[in-house]
Amino acid sequence: MKIPRAENNVSQEIIGERVSLLNSMGVDLSHTTHYSIDPQTTTGNIENFIGVAQVPVGLAGPLLINGECARGEFLVPLATTEGALVASYSRGMKAITESGGCSTYIRSDFFTRVGAFSLPNVSAAVALARWCEEHTHEIAQEVEATTQHGHFQQMFTHVVGTRLYVEFRITTGDAMGSNMCSNAAEMACRWIEREALDTNGTYLWLIAEDKKLVGRSMTNGKGKSVVAEALIMESVLERVLHTHAEDTIKTFESTDEWWTIFGAHGHNSHVANGLVALYIACGQDAAYVAESCSGHLRISLQPNRGIHVAISLPCMIVGTVGGGCGLPTQRECLRVLGCEGEGNARKFAEVAAATALAGELSVMAAVAAGEFVRAHNQLGRNRPA
Amino acid sequence: MKIPRAENNVSQEIIGERVSLLNSMGVDLSHTTHYSIDPQTTTGNIENFIGVAQVPVGLAGPLLINGECARGEFLVPLATTEGALVASYSRGMKAITESGGCSTYIRSDFFTRVGAFSLPNVSAAVALARWCEEHTHEIAQEVEATTQHGHFQQMFTHVVGTRLYVEFRITTGDAMGSNMCSNAAEMACRWIEREALDTNGTYLWLIAEDKKLVGRSMTNGKGKSVVAEALIMESVLERVLHTHAEDTIKTFESTDEWWTIFGAHGHNSHVANGLVALYIACGQDAAYVAESCSGHLRISLQPNRGIHVAISLPCMIVGTVGGGCGLPTQRECLRVLGCEGEGNARKFAEVAAATALAGELSVMAAVAAGEFVRAHNQLGRNRPA
Amino acid sequence: MKIPRAENNVSQEIIGERVSLLNSMGVDLSHTTHYSIDPQTTTGNIENFIGVAQVPVGLAGPLLINGECARGEFLVPLATTEGALVASYSRGMKAITESGGCSTYIRSDFFTRVGAFSLPNVSAAVALARWCEEHTHEIAQEVEATTQHGHFQQMFTHVVGTRLYVEFRITTGDAMGSNMCSNAAEMACRWIEREALDTNGTYLWLIAEDKKLVGRSMTNGKGKSVVAEALIMESVLERVLHTHAEDTIKTFESTDEWWTIFGAHGHNSHVANGLVALYIACGQDAAYVAESCSGHLRISLQPNRGIHVAISLPCMIVGTVGGGCGLPTQRECLRVLGCEGEGNARKFAEVAAATALAGELSVMAAVAAGEFVRAHNQLGRNRPA
Amino acid sequence: MKIPRAENNVSQEIIGERVSLLNSMGVDLSHTTHYSIDPQTTTGNIENFIGVAQVPVGLAGPLLINGECARGEFLVPLATTEGALVASYSRGMKAITESGGCSTYIRSDFFTRVGAFSLPNVSAAVALARWCEEHTHEIAQEVEATTQHGHFQQMFTHVVGTRLYVEFRITTGDAMGSNMCSNAAEMACRWIEREALDTNGTYLWLIAEDKKLVGRSMTNGKGKSVVAEALIMESVLERVLHTHAEDTIKTFESTDEWWTIFGAHGHNSHVANGLVALYIACGQDAAYVAESCSGHLRISLQPNRGIHVAISLPCMIVGTVGGGCGLPTQRECLRVLGCEGEGNARKFAEVAAATALAGELSVMAAVAAGEFVRAHNQLGRNRPA
Repeated sequence: MKIPRAENNVSQEIIGERVSLLNSMGVDLSHTTHYSIDPQTTTGNIENFIGVAQVPVGLAGPLLINGECARGEFLVPLATTEGALVASYSRGMKAITESGGCSTYIRSDFFTRVGAFSLPNVSAAVALARWCEEHTHEIAQEVEATTQHGHFQQMFTHVVGTRLYVEFRITTGDAMGSNMCSNAAEMACRWIEREALDTNGTYLWLIAEDKKLVGRSMTNGKGKSVVAEALIMESVLERVLHTHAEDTIKTFESTDEWWTIFGAHGHNSHVANGLVALYIACGQDAAYVAESCSGHLRISLQPNRGIHVAISLPCMIVGTVGGGCGLPTQRECLRVLGCEGEGNARKFAEVAAATALAGELSVMAAVAAGEFVRAHNQLGRNRPA
Repeated sequence: MKIPRAENNVSQEIIGERVSLLNSMGVDLSHTTHYSIDPQTTTGNIENFIGVAQVPVGLAGPLLINGECARGEFLVPLATTEGALVASYSRGMKAITESGGCSTYIRSDFFTRVGAFSLPNVSAAVALARWCEEHTHEIAQEVEATTQHGHFQQMFTHVVGTRLYVEFRITTGDAMGSNMCSNAAEMACRWIEREALDTNGTYLWLIAEDKKLVGRSMTNGKGKSVVAEALIMESVLERVLHTHAEDTIKTFESTDEWWTIFGAHGHNSHVANGLVALYIACGQDAAYVAESCSGHLRISLQPNRGIHVAISLPCMIVGTVGGGCGLPTQRECLRVLGCEGEGNARKFAEVAAATALAGELSVMAAVAAGEFVRAHNQLGRNRPA
Repeated sequence: MKIPRAENNVSQEIIGERVSLLNSMGVDLSHTTHYSIDPQTTTGNIENFIGVAQVPVGLAGPLLINGECARGEFLVPLATTEGALVASYSRGMKAITESGGCSTYIRSDFFTRVGAFSLPNVSAAVALARWCEEHTHEIAQEVEATTQHGHFQQMFTHVVGTRLYVEFRITTGDAMGSNMCSNAAEMACRWIEREALDTNGTYLWLIAEDKKLVGRSMTNGKGKSVVAEALIMESVLERVLHTHAEDTIKTFESTDEWWTIFGAHGHNSHVANGLVALYIACGQDAAYVAESCSGHLRISLQPNRGIHVAISLPCMIVGTVGGGCGLPTQRECLRVLGCEGEGNARKFAEVAAATALAGELSVMAAVAAGEFVRAHNQLGRNRPA
Repeated sequence: MKIPRAENNVSQEIIGERVSLLNSMGVDLSHTTHYSIDPQTTTGNIENFIGVAQVPVGLAGPLLINGECARGEFLVPLATTEGALVASYSRGMKAITESGGCSTYIRSDFFTRVGAFSLPNVSAAVALARWCEEHTHEIAQEVEATTQHGHFQQMFTHVVGTRLYVEFRITTGDAMGSNMCSNAAEMACRWIEREALDTNGTYLWLIAEDKKLVGRSMTNGKGKSVVAEALIMESVLERVLHTHAEDTIKTFESTDEWWTIFGAHGHNSHVANGLVALYIACGQDAAYVAESCSGHLRISLQPNRGIHVAISLPCMIVGTVGGGCGLPTQRECLRVLGCEGEGNARKFAEVAAATALAGELSVMAAVAAGEFVRAHNQLGRNRPA
């Protein structure tokens, strides 16, 4: 068994051969091969193309955001197969919007790359670390030589055993920036290798640090570090979410306690849910949800007014140019948010954080109201509703 | 601004109204509205349907698996927009297959749910915990009363402050099982409430514990706990992966060190990458990647033979019935794997673990060969290749 | 430079030689060499004896405990050099005692040991794991063959890469039990090696797992898992702790939040403080504080009554026989608590948990009252007060 | 029952009353009350003094250190009741010394304090954070106004929910510095309160952040961040440690793997052991071992030469002035190390790291040689040896 491949690996002919192979194994692909996109446009996004996954997109909102970059009412496209997800997020958005909207802030913005160097001993590793610190200016120049959009922000050195890890923080404009950042860090590490290493030291490689939860990123940030908040009035809690401030607080407190006891890495209910649906719809790299979903929900009582909900998401990895952003349906969904292309990455990050906030609010309220299990039973079943 | 809704919220008419609303805002949705699936069939999977995200699917493999459930050569459909991902996983699969395939094992299999009870004090919480332990048999019966497919496996009690957390382990057959498990646990907790609580105690709710990395699950398991391994011969390392055993080991060791130092929760390179692509293609709940991607890669030298690679994935949350499994393209992709429907959840879990193994091997080898940055530059750009 | 040693390494003569060596280097040891203990009795506790550290012991309390094992008023000896520590703990004890005392419970009780086995591959490791599970009964017998006091409780198997880790839970009576448990686990592993391994497998060793914080222990328990609670009346909060229920709650909430955000492993204020002072005074192995100090403080408002404080300490490692328990001052301090010798380990664990609770209460209240910095300035300075 | 107290709470009379109380309860304190220290000198270190814990001190070494601050051969006093500890550390020191000694480096040096501010919402918290960043210079001046020895190093702001956490990094000279740092941070926070807060915002308090393991400190440092390394020759491994390079490497690799799998916070064997013994002997605050013991051991093969061992200890909290440093036996032990008083904190930190390195080496080698269980059986029993 061999997957048919050709030099032009996205021609109709070679795609057809792959599909035929699967057909010959008894698998009908009539849905997967039903698409409007031009396979030629997928060359930077996929290899061995056979068709598309049609992931249902639902519209949540409107969501009123009074952010620094995102301002106004947003309809949020979410691609998911989990029944109740869109309804739940939409419900949370309604509560936020009817309470006057949410505010969003970006607290830091940088991508990271770490280069590893092998030295004969700690002594040499410490010496190289100090050399790098003294040559930060030149290293910054090397980083910026490779890219128009990326800018050097900061550098850290870590000595462990006989290795030195040099950590770069680089801004990446509106691109998510992993490749841009890899190229820039690689160039800087090669420069360090040429300028500072004798035959006893070696530049090893860039560390594969992405797409997993990392303690250092959780407390130091990575990508966009975003905060979102809303004040939800008691009347809205009752009418839209069928619960009360006191009950929601109690739910939050016991859930937060459980997160502590069981060792949850990230004190939030289901940020991954909304983010992965938004990422799939909008051409983001969905695997970064493993990092982006980290974050901390806070709910506090506002006597006589309702509740204050806030979420801090320290490691949100998003972009509005490059990656999957240019694919047809993905570009359409970015347009629904007014977030297509240059100048919109921070706006998109704020929309994502506001969406996460809505989802947290909705689940906490549903649990408080005793509706959580019921909602999933009603909406999450594969029968016409 | 208001999203049009109707009682039959998946009629062509109401879908059209939603699309018209977006069109009137200047957003063309001609790709998103191009789909073959019948919106009526999405009612358990999405609300406020407007169309589909067309996520490119590429074919990786063949991947030879000598598992306990998955046996034979598999072609693995991966839905992603990240260039190089399919190529990289396919390369790892080739190395595994040419080395004689990988083995896979399922070490444990249960879903979890935790019910929270509020008591006046620790004393009452301890008393209730002990009562529950004495009535495990009856509680098990309550759990199983709600479901044909779910079976009670074990129960744990945790006293924290004035709350008792009762943790259930329930097997869920071929369904991912979150709803099944919620219903069963809810029923059991209601029974405990009726039988054991006086007016001073309250059953609060089920904890929203899913879709985030939790320390307890990482060391105790959740969903399928799967292990996969392969012995990669030196000749295959050279021919397919352009590297050598020693270099791969060195790469692994320094990367593993970095994971330790920076506090990575899960010592693996990019398991989230392959899993989220497989989950999107095959109708899994992609948000569970936040948990499923946890796991530990191990690579060891096999003198004169090559390297041994293994991965342990303690919390893989998958299913082959329910959820998004029945949607058209998703069902087709499950069929590509021979994993559609009943009897296949464990097989699918083994395929997923084998896929993760291939991806880890490929990235580690690429880094070792100095090809990592280059591969992303070649394949991960939006130009015809 | 060489440390004088002799066959009888605790004779006055050889001790004198060591002291002379230090004297010859210009160091006067007139205090260190002033002791009442008989060096001969230290042979199981120290090597190369030169004298003693005189660590000041202060008396805290009385502390009223209504525990399952510890019952009555306790005066608690604490050995420390940190000014304000005894005063602060004593203050917390006073508040507890005047509120009617605290309750304490032991939720689980076992020591752990993990044996590592090397196998040629995962397949063999899984096979050995299953073999062990089938032979649990015989393995339990081997564990218990080495010891009168230790009892087999449970066994877990963990397959990682080509290694199998067999984890034993063993009760250890009134001894802390690390050596007892090591011997028992070693014996069981040797039996597995003989019975189940061919030439391709090897029993490696017992893992050095003690004296560091381990995620698995934090959620599964190790040593004594103890819970303590008290209801502190508003009047006592005011009179003894100079604060109010609302302020204490607010302090706890923001501190608990900070523990989450900064990634504290264990949500408590300074459990290590009281435990290490108690451990030093009472002949416990102070290095186990690295594990024992893990735990979670909870404070909740009791409307019209005051506050409820509780602490869960999942990994408290203590004993009342063996180790340093038999040394003279240490035995005296154990006697102060009525915890000397057999039958008292669980009682001692409850006293320790109650002590930790008092310390947490006192610090939280001090912070709430704005007295924290002031108290340390007054008591923590090296001038006569 | 009431602990006798008096205005002069360290007079012989009041101490005698406390002792009499315990005597009247049937507890003989003839050893605890046998001491050479003048109770009057303990007033900054203890309250309700009743006597001393006599903790046996053993001498380990000599340990050859080629550090930046610590240079030469050191005899290391360790106070412990765990049999085999001094022997084991001494053995590791011998191996290091016979291999030419170890090198030590201090990579960073600062204490931290975090002030919490309550604001009406995230918006106000972000505004205050930005205000603080703009006024860093003035804040630094406020920090330094309270202390001759402390210097402002850096400031970070963290917005979470409606709270702002301002984190200070302050150097503390040769003092451990917690009180110095508390005073400085308190002063700076009060200044921020006066200058930047209106009636809607409040400065709450300093967070009780010490004496527990915190993720942020583990990757960012706290106190002295120290690295130590040694190259151990194969001949020394054989003669002194009864093992070989390959076996030691294998032991390290499987132990390091276990630390990963079970979620150890800090990949080291028993750093807490040596540190707590050194801290008790030398008047350090032993509760800081809960933080100081965090760190990562690395062992790598040096073909044809032996092994390279290194340890990174990111959060070592020590000082040579203040606290318990001035007490009689403690001062004597500091003198044994040539570390008494001003100018010696960094030297002491290097000695501590070198000691930790020796302990790790010794245990790893003992496990590799199969001697671990046997050594504890021989030395860790309460019978004359």
